[in-house]
Amino acid sequence: MPIKKRLEILSLGDEFLLGLRDNAHLSYIGRELARKGLSIARDQELRDNVEEIRHHFLETWGRADIVITVGGLGPTADDLTRVAISDALGLRLIPNASVEASIRMCLAKVGRVPNQAQLSQSLVPEGAEILPNPLGTAPGIWLEKDGRILVMLPGAANEMRPMFIEQVLPRLEARDIALINDAFLQLRTCGITESEASLLLAPVFSPLKSRINVGFGCSATGLVDVRIGAGDDGVGWEDIEKVGNTCRELLGSNFLGYGDVTLAEIIIRHLRAQEMTVAVAESCTGGLLSSAFTDIPGASKVFRGGVVCYNNDIKMDLLDVPESILLQHGAVSAEAAAAMATGAQERLDSDFAISVTGYAGPEGGGVSSPVGTIYLGFASPQGVWSRKVFLDGTRMNIRERSVVMALDWIRRKLKQFGADAEIAHTVSQAD
Amino acid sequence: MPIKKRLEILSLGDEFLLGLRDNAHLSYIGRELARKGLSIARDQELRDNVEEIRHHFLETWGRADIVITVGGLGPTADDLTRVAISDALGLRLIPNASVEASIRMCLAKVGRVPNQAQLSQSLVPEGAEILPNPLGTAPGIWLEKDGRILVMLPGAANEMRPMFIEQVLPRLEARDIALINDAFLQLRTCGITESEASLLLAPVFSPLKSRINVGFGCSATGLVDVRIGAGDDGVGWEDIEKVGNTCRELLGSNFLGYGDVTLAEIIIRHLRAQEMTVAVAESCTGGLLSSAFTDIPGASKVFRGGVVCYNNDIKMDLLDVPESILLQHGAVSAEAAAAMATGAQERLDSDFAISVTGYAGPEGGGVSSPVGTIYLGFASPQGVWSRKVFLDGTRMNIRERSVVMALDWIRRKLKQFGADAEIAHTVSQAD
Repeated sequence: MPIKKRLEILSLGDEFLLGLRDNAHLSYIGRELARKGLSIARDQELRDNVEEIRHHFLETWGRADIVITVGGLGPTADDLTRVAISDALGLRLIPNASVEASIRMCLAKVGRVPNQAQLSQSLVPEGAEILPNPLGTAPGIWLEKDGRILVMLPGAANEMRPMFIEQVLPRLEARDIALINDAFLQLRTCGITESEASLLLAPVFSPLKSRINVGFGCSATGLVDVRIGAGDDGVGWEDIEKVGNTCRELLGSNFLGYGDVTLAEIIIRHLRAQEMTVAVAESCTGGLLSSAFTDIPGASKVFRGGVVCYNNDIKMDLLDVPESILLQHGAVSAEAAAAMATGAQERLDSDFAISVTGYAGPEGGGVSSPVGTIYLGFASPQGVWSRKVFLDGTRMNIRERSVVMALDWIRRKLKQFGADAEIAHTVSQAD
Repeated sequence: MPIKKRLEILSLGDEFLLGLRDNAHLSYIGRELARKGLSIARDQELRDNVEEIRHHFLETWGRADIVITVGGLGPTADDLTRVAISDALGLRLIPNASVEASIRMCLAKVGRVPNQAQLSQSLVPEGAEILPNPLGTAPGIWLEKDGRILVMLPGAANEMRPMFIEQVLPRLEARDIALINDAFLQLRTCGITESEASLLLAPVFSPLKSRINVGFGCSATGLVDVRIGAGDDGVGWEDIEKVGNTCRELLGSNFLGYGDVTLAEIIIRHLRAQEMTVAVAESCTGGLLSSAFTDIPGASKVFRGGVVCYNNDIKMDLLDVPESILLQHGAVSAEAAAAMATGAQERLDSDFAISVTGYAGPEGGGVSSPVGTIYLGFASPQGVWSRKVFLDGTRMNIRERSVVMALDWIRRKLKQFGADAEIAHTVSQAD
């Protein structure tokens, strides 16, 4: 078991306090630390002000074993972290020749010579270790003092993230603070709420009370994650895997996969194995369903394409939806959803197709089909289905959750289709 | 001028520290406060632990004039804010009959009777004012004590946000802490970097040094916002508007609009005024360009639809892209982008069309067209154009910035088209 340490984060930058940007550093570092058995005791977003940084840093340094700062290491006037903290710790800033050389090299690539402000990034607190930054001019800093650890990281995400993974985590592992292996097993689910999952899995977890550590987390779009780790009385990874397997069985078709898997990833993996393809026809989701697939690198082997049919004549022209269906049942109907799916399957020449049509609001809908009424369609080589769902929330929320509902439905259908195909295969072999 | 107060936020919830979710409360509140002339001095994300909440609350209460807490007011075991803070302030929790009645009513709607945990939400610190919550069971709390203000808000975004706007801001305005009108004028730009904007506008801002307050912010996709507010020596709103107009002229075609306007919104507004329509053909952006349009309520009057053509045969079948172009120039070429735009314009029967084709990575591309090579196409009643851009970054980043580049290009083209049409109109009138 690693040594328990109190770890705090200081996030520097006015942009977080002025509402200009979400602090995505915190969730990134939190996730990576949790994976290694460490938790953040507190985070503070502070203003770019030497006095404030100094004061809150000292208060934090007095309570924590490890302090990680993010941001404020750059060359501009509001980059004050290095100065404020060195001063708080009573450490001199010393020019570092190797950092200066790498700043010069980094700027030479774009044909420039560093100015005084850029060269100030080569000042390093005495006694500190440099964390080289191959992607920018500001290096990270690792400092051990009075039994405590201070880590200073740059605020550009593309520089901070690899530095954290490749240079900070290994140092924490080497000091037996972070685990070398993953601290928990994560089961991702879809189609079950946090409290339903907790109730369903209670019979597995209750008898193991202090031996395992269970956490539930729910994303904005409704995927629920179950994290199982070793408790204070510690069980081994093999036992955790066994518990995970039991949970997986209990979760049944609501189990998506281990880790951070996405619905589109699972569908693409499944179709790729079967050498089959999928296409999309969407109205109210307006491109979001297609982009869920195209988010995944390598999607083109499986994803044929999509039609965003925001107007009835496009449903007819590009997807061959019969005008009679639109006139009789309307564009938001089970019949239209089925015709859109069949049309996409035929016109985009795919094995499977999914469609979405509905009212995402704030306008549209009516008494019988209010805003939030969504129809999904699914076409497969075996036939076509449609399904009505009702979602509440903002326009964006309805659109995003419609995508999740559509993807989860096709996932379940494909699983069933795969099982059917396997049965057919077994039967024909028995013949 | 309102009274300057130190305002701090406490964000309660393990989810922010475990990397399960970004703290979007902070950016929301920060933005709304900035608009009213208030800034957040510090935010802290704290764990669901009575001792920690108590300790950090007291330290904050000792420094700040206004403390706003978000989260931890619900009925479950990890909702500890009410208890921890009342205890820290030495205030008794008193059952409130009207809150209890509204909890009973809220649950009666779904046919349920509140349990003990749910009823505990009706406990209110003595001396506090209730902020009713029409969308949930946990009310907000407003408490004035020792010349300080404490505001406690629920952690569900759809409950917190209207409560903040409708109940908290008006109370801050009434006490002359928040401005009644907007504190600054925001100019949104596209096509210019933060440092370019700052250099370009320096001649306007420099002579006004202490009379105005200028801030620059840059979003992840590259839109730069310029915020102009009154400085310590204060100027009136009329003067700020005058400064804004001068900046607007200097920014020229890089000026998008005032406030939080989006590129797609501007294009839709423009096309709607001219009763004209647009369609999309996209490959590497895979649905994101269409969804930028369909994000906007009422887009259907202007946005005809889109084709996500991830495969060459779909480019040919649905968009009539000639096979000879794909064979000779490849799918990622100026010629293919132009043909896609023309095809979308014709097949989706729109006045204008935009297309995107490129390599978003991580695979694909080659020596002459590496990952990040993007071609944009634009078809109008006057002809068809294409344009090459190069973007670096992750797959997601390249995709998102391609959307911004495409939208900004069509925005500029439409502006030019509008100007040309106006000239033609003037000329024909002169005839």
